[in-house]
Amino acid sequence: MEPKSLGNEKPKLRVGLIGTGFMGKTHSFGFAAAERVFDLPFELELHTVADRTEELAGAAARTLGFKNATGDWRRLVGDPDIDLVDITAPNAFHREMALAAIAAGKHVYCEKPLAPRAAEAAEMANAAVAAGVRTQVGFNYLCNPMMALARDLIVTGELGEIRSYRGIHAEDYMGDAESPFTFRLDKVGGGALADLGSHALATAEFLLGPIERVLGDEVTVINSRPDGKDGRTAVEVDDIGRAFLRFASGATGSIEASWVATGRKMQHNFEVYGSRGALAFSQERFNELQFYTTAEAGRVRGFRRIQAGPDHPPYGLFCVAPGHQLGFNDLKAIEVALFLEAIAGIRAEPFSFRSGQRIQELVEAIHTSATGGRWVSTA
Amino acid sequence: MEPKSLGNEKPKLRVGLIGTGFMGKTHSFGFAAAERVFDLPFELELHTVADRTEELAGAAARTLGFKNATGDWRRLVGDPDIDLVDITAPNAFHREMALAAIAAGKHVYCEKPLAPRAAEAAEMANAAVAAGVRTQVGFNYLCNPMMALARDLIVTGELGEIRSYRGIHAEDYMGDAESPFTFRLDKVGGGALADLGSHALATAEFLLGPIERVLGDEVTVINSRPDGKDGRTAVEVDDIGRAFLRFASGATGSIEASWVATGRKMQHNFEVYGSRGALAFSQERFNELQFYTTAEAGRVRGFRRIQAGPDHPPYGLFCVAPGHQLGFNDLKAIEVALFLEAIAGIRAEPFSFRSGQRIQELVEAIHTSATGGRWVSTA
Amino acid sequence: MEPKSLGNEKPKLRVGLIGTGFMGKTHSFGFAAAERVFDLPFELELHTVADRTEELAGAAARTLGFKNATGDWRRLVGDPDIDLVDITAPNAFHREMALAAIAAGKHVYCEKPLAPRAAEAAEMANAAVAAGVRTQVGFNYLCNPMMALARDLIVTGELGEIRSYRGIHAEDYMGDAESPFTFRLDKVGGGALADLGSHALATAEFLLGPIERVLGDEVTVINSRPDGKDGRTAVEVDDIGRAFLRFASGATGSIEASWVATGRKMQHNFEVYGSRGALAFSQERFNELQFYTTAEAGRVRGFRRIQAGPDHPPYGLFCVAPGHQLGFNDLKAIEVALFLEAIAGIRAEPFSFRSGQRIQELVEAIHTSATGGRWVSTA
Amino acid sequence: MEPKSLGNEKPKLRVGLIGTGFMGKTHSFGFAAAERVFDLPFELELHTVADRTEELAGAAARTLGFKNATGDWRRLVGDPDIDLVDITAPNAFHREMALAAIAAGKHVYCEKPLAPRAAEAAEMANAAVAAGVRTQVGFNYLCNPMMALARDLIVTGELGEIRSYRGIHAEDYMGDAESPFTFRLDKVGGGALADLGSHALATAEFLLGPIERVLGDEVTVINSRPDGKDGRTAVEVDDIGRAFLRFASGATGSIEASWVATGRKMQHNFEVYGSRGALAFSQERFNELQFYTTAEAGRVRGFRRIQAGPDHPPYGLFCVAPGHQLGFNDLKAIEVALFLEAIAGIRAEPFSFRSGQRIQELVEAIHTSATGGRWVSTA
Repeated sequence: MEPKSLGNEKPKLRVGLIGTGFMGKTHSFGFAAAERVFDLPFELELHTVADRTEELAGAAARTLGFKNATGDWRRLVGDPDIDLVDITAPNAFHREMALAAIAAGKHVYCEKPLAPRAAEAAEMANAAVAAGVRTQVGFNYLCNPMMALARDLIVTGELGEIRSYRGIHAEDYMGDAESPFTFRLDKVGGGALADLGSHALATAEFLLGPIERVLGDEVTVINSRPDGKDGRTAVEVDDIGRAFLRFASGATGSIEASWVATGRKMQHNFEVYGSRGALAFSQERFNELQFYTTAEAGRVRGFRRIQAGPDHPPYGLFCVAPGHQLGFNDLKAIEVALFLEAIAGIRAEPFSFRSGQRIQELVEAIHTSATGGRWVSTA
Repeated sequence: MEPKSLGNEKPKLRVGLIGTGFMGKTHSFGFAAAERVFDLPFELELHTVADRTEELAGAAARTLGFKNATGDWRRLVGDPDIDLVDITAPNAFHREMALAAIAAGKHVYCEKPLAPRAAEAAEMANAAVAAGVRTQVGFNYLCNPMMALARDLIVTGELGEIRSYRGIHAEDYMGDAESPFTFRLDKVGGGALADLGSHALATAEFLLGPIERVLGDEVTVINSRPDGKDGRTAVEVDDIGRAFLRFASGATGSIEASWVATGRKMQHNFEVYGSRGALAFSQERFNELQFYTTAEAGRVRGFRRIQAGPDHPPYGLFCVAPGHQLGFNDLKAIEVALFLEAIAGIRAEPFSFRSGQRIQELVEAIHTSATGGRWVSTA
Repeated sequence: MEPKSLGNEKPKLRVGLIGTGFMGKTHSFGFAAAERVFDLPFELELHTVADRTEELAGAAARTLGFKNATGDWRRLVGDPDIDLVDITAPNAFHREMALAAIAAGKHVYCEKPLAPRAAEAAEMANAAVAAGVRTQVGFNYLCNPMMALARDLIVTGELGEIRSYRGIHAEDYMGDAESPFTFRLDKVGGGALADLGSHALATAEFLLGPIERVLGDEVTVINSRPDGKDGRTAVEVDDIGRAFLRFASGATGSIEASWVATGRKMQHNFEVYGSRGALAFSQERFNELQFYTTAEAGRVRGFRRIQAGPDHPPYGLFCVAPGHQLGFNDLKAIEVALFLEAIAGIRAEPFSFRSGQRIQELVEAIHTSATGGRWVSTA
Repeated sequence: MEPKSLGNEKPKLRVGLIGTGFMGKTHSFGFAAAERVFDLPFELELHTVADRTEELAGAAARTLGFKNATGDWRRLVGDPDIDLVDITAPNAFHREMALAAIAAGKHVYCEKPLAPRAAEAAEMANAAVAAGVRTQVGFNYLCNPMMALARDLIVTGELGEIRSYRGIHAEDYMGDAESPFTFRLDKVGGGALADLGSHALATAEFLLGPIERVLGDEVTVINSRPDGKDGRTAVEVDDIGRAFLRFASGATGSIEASWVATGRKMQHNFEVYGSRGALAFSQERFNELQFYTTAEAGRVRGFRRIQAGPDHPPYGLFCVAPGHQLGFNDLKAIEVALFLEAIAGIRAEPFSFRSGQRIQELVEAIHTSATGGRWVSTA
């Protein structure tokens, strides 16, 4: 048997991954799936993974399918063979790593939040533009085919004039007052608004366009957490963040973020109300979109549960049959494919550092508003 | 056949009803059902109904089962035979009618909102206290057995310390920009916050206790409405009202009211999050309550859908079998029974004019807050 | 004050009620509500109630609003003043009571099941036809406005050619093996198929028309029950009944009845599949109907949740606002109104004894089929 | 930079894939994800893909990540370098391909249905046992962590004694009468019962153990289909198949399969009722399981919606956070991992050809039963 050995003329794109935790794994799953599901513009090479020590990195490389490992992320960033640096390290390191990678001429893919302060995010976004590299922040929920359908129904006017919006992102992973203090709980980490509200804000602007003004509310529910020794550390950030919103379009709305919402695991929900229709969505059932239209006769009107399928690209590339459902990791594969297409120049960057900066600006404005108890412009 | 003719030693309570629209009918259904379902402390006599003309009142009396009719509500209020005056006339008349009835020594049952301004509601509540008559405002959603269960789960600590609250009351009956201008749309009428937000606020305090501070947001979505001639009238009230809340207990939350939420017919929803559990509820399925508790083992935790049944009094008086469901009019029957028991001195007034005044104060505070863009005390 | 004392020229209809348990109460609620909600062709007079003793009957008369009471149902049936005899006594007495009432020239309203055997039901139906009186069996689920909508969507062809049907009626009130033996558990009582399957069969024929053949399955899950002394009594009837169905229309389907379905309180569900659409329904949320149509564009197709409202008569007579929901007792009020209209000659009898007989024939055919393990004709 | 080049001491397992359609792609996604998510006992090498022509195979190899391609599946099967043959070709070829692969000493992974007739499936299963190779049939729905939870709750007695079962697998991909005749529609293809009912039967036995007797029902709804020229071809198989079931445990139940259920995309549902609890599941929301237990106090009993998370292995290997959801392709990755562990001897074959044979026997028994209209033993 001599089957033809197959050529592959696509250009290579070599990936360096920094960080191997929850998001590091998710990204590596995303790379693996994207290669199989999409006709990518590049042949991916999972080149090097960096972690705190060489041992950790080596173990992760084997698990995640990378060829090389290093305990020093600067070596990865400086490696001339690497084209794309993927940053999933703790938030506090994003800025330094991204700036170094940009300086080395790499395309940079960074988990959210991009930076603890908007000014730093702006510095990162500006650096990328100046260097002419492509960037992406990991707003994976926006990669959902049903989110694209939602935006399309809004943009094409099927809901009429958009009037109001309600967005939520609530989970309960910080709900136990005895769960220990972590990096998320100091001011640099950012709080529920920065961690989860960022998703709610990204979804709001993805669907309804720019937010012009916000009126914020922030609450610390659990004032101290065990410090891991025998004492407790004061918590400096919000456990719940809320905001009223004014969109440039004239629509108004609200968002809420909570990481102490007992029982909620993925309540990234939104409702959109227009003059002729409405949408409702929950990330807990993200393969569905609820759609209401006044175009139906009164007696048969109702919210219909649309199930994701090949009518909702790129679902069909994952599965030719509707109703079978994408998973969370599949959203990451779509995110990877979008970034590679942006690098190849096939499309604009969908979630560049500039959009990451934008979300940080909104988070910061809400914080400023909540502190002062007054509306703050975000135009 | 000579079956025993049955005596009935209960004291009589003679009812006068003012107004025969949506709520007038609902109240008369409530009286009829309450008599059959409950062992009331009184024998009800539906004595007189008043409407704008004698003809209208006469037709309504026949339909609604009242013995007499009048085109002059003052005659009804002045009739010494009448014990209870039930006011379902348009909101603008509530104050005058109620004060007259109180002055005549009647118990007064009044639809919400009690009055357009809190000061007027206070006047009404004070007058009732001074006169020693019993009063009730029609907060029928609070009469739901599942609402009682929700409050009980909170009060007995099954949710742990209560942390946050999210309340909504959204419908779409004012959603069509071409629906004509009505009394609801001038300043006296009050807007969505007064009409629907009052329900959301009543539910919030029913469940979590007093609200201390609010930060409001009000929006007029449809700026003018057809005036019924060939022009349009400017709308002076909110189509959407929102508020952030601080409860005396330390919990925080939000409410939203909208009457332009296309597709929503009865989205009177709430979510309550505590340190050990959570609740979720929608009036669209008001015979159900969602309950989450961390007392379950991790792998089998989840929001459970409790269906109303005889375990949730007074459901069992309506139906001995669970899952059969109460209807909206049944809630009114419970409301009637509660008021009659208060009149008989068996229980405290559950929703007296004082509680109606309280809701108006909250509505007013939110309006003041929204106008000024700052937190306002409601203590 | 001299309001006009109101006349009422409607003819009187005097009601005699036999039985004061679950269904006796429900019927009396139905009479009370029907008077208020509907413009009935008669003025109802709740004349006499009969129970096992005069004392019981007297107490019930006071509670249920009847004028007279008797411990002897034969006196009620023989009273020339009574026009309509309403039978809610235990199933075993239905035949004797109904035949006596028919012989006395009364219209007869009888709870289901009409009789333990189809031949007896036929005898009752024949007697009523011969006597020229009107009859009705209590198939209240069929009085739901959403059930009417479902049938209308089928009959008008909005679902295309109907292909298949799935019906269930499952509850759990006999699920505890230690709940005592009752009349329902001997052969005359009938079992789950007779008690609950009768509802499933009535719904199936209401929606899809006549069933021609059945293939049955019956199971006794709990073989004996406590006899109330110290022993146990053998159970002679089915706890679960199932059948495959062939409709005259060519459609096929199945039904299942169970009273040992732990956790189910009112799982009276159906699904209908046609060539161009589908319906799904659950009595647990009976103010909703799920509707799917292929007339929508592919990407926005989905089952829509239609909420009951004034578009679905006679909902609007109960409440002018959609989404507020009817309750179980409201369905009984509709049932009462339908029967009074049939007595007045305004409409055909919607659920006459003939239709009750039909359901018994189907139950019997399924029993015969299950015993023999073969298809049985029901044409 | 000289990061350590990483060794990998795991033994290699070289895969040959036959067929590149829906399931061919899904399997290749499964291999890719399994490598990243699991610590597999082998290093996978995607060696060769076979399709009808060398060109098709070559294109698929590039897309799916295989090194070699061939237009002749016999060459793949005969290649001594290949350890595992994965068959996703049309059903009609399964037997011949599998027997050839077994004869060549390969482990064989085959999509369902294993063979059109149980006798052929038995031949395949026997051959595999005789050759000492490992086999697996693609029952991916059983790989769902929530399905494992369901079985565990049953086996550990949390539902008490299991009484009844209701299983469904309904879709609508054959619902259009004008969709052309395909291989699925002749007797060898098998019909809805073989294609979808096989899933329902596999789930039933997975959860409740062996089925002893069946009473079947089969219906052809669309009697002819366009033949692709100008005529129509008669359809020889069932569009809907149903069966009543007797389990060896004493439980009873039913299954239904339909591929003409308009609006249904993935209605692979089940309900299990025990003496102390119940389960309900729908593959349309396969990251959830509904669980009811009588261990709760009456007033807070209800079906709870358990969301998949790290408490439900191997979910946590895909994602450390609950509620994020697995996708359909992730189930295939689990299936792959299970097979590789069986090949490595770490576990028994979870879904061997013997279990595939079993399902075919059940399908065949139902067909025999439906044809004869009588109960058939499946012990």
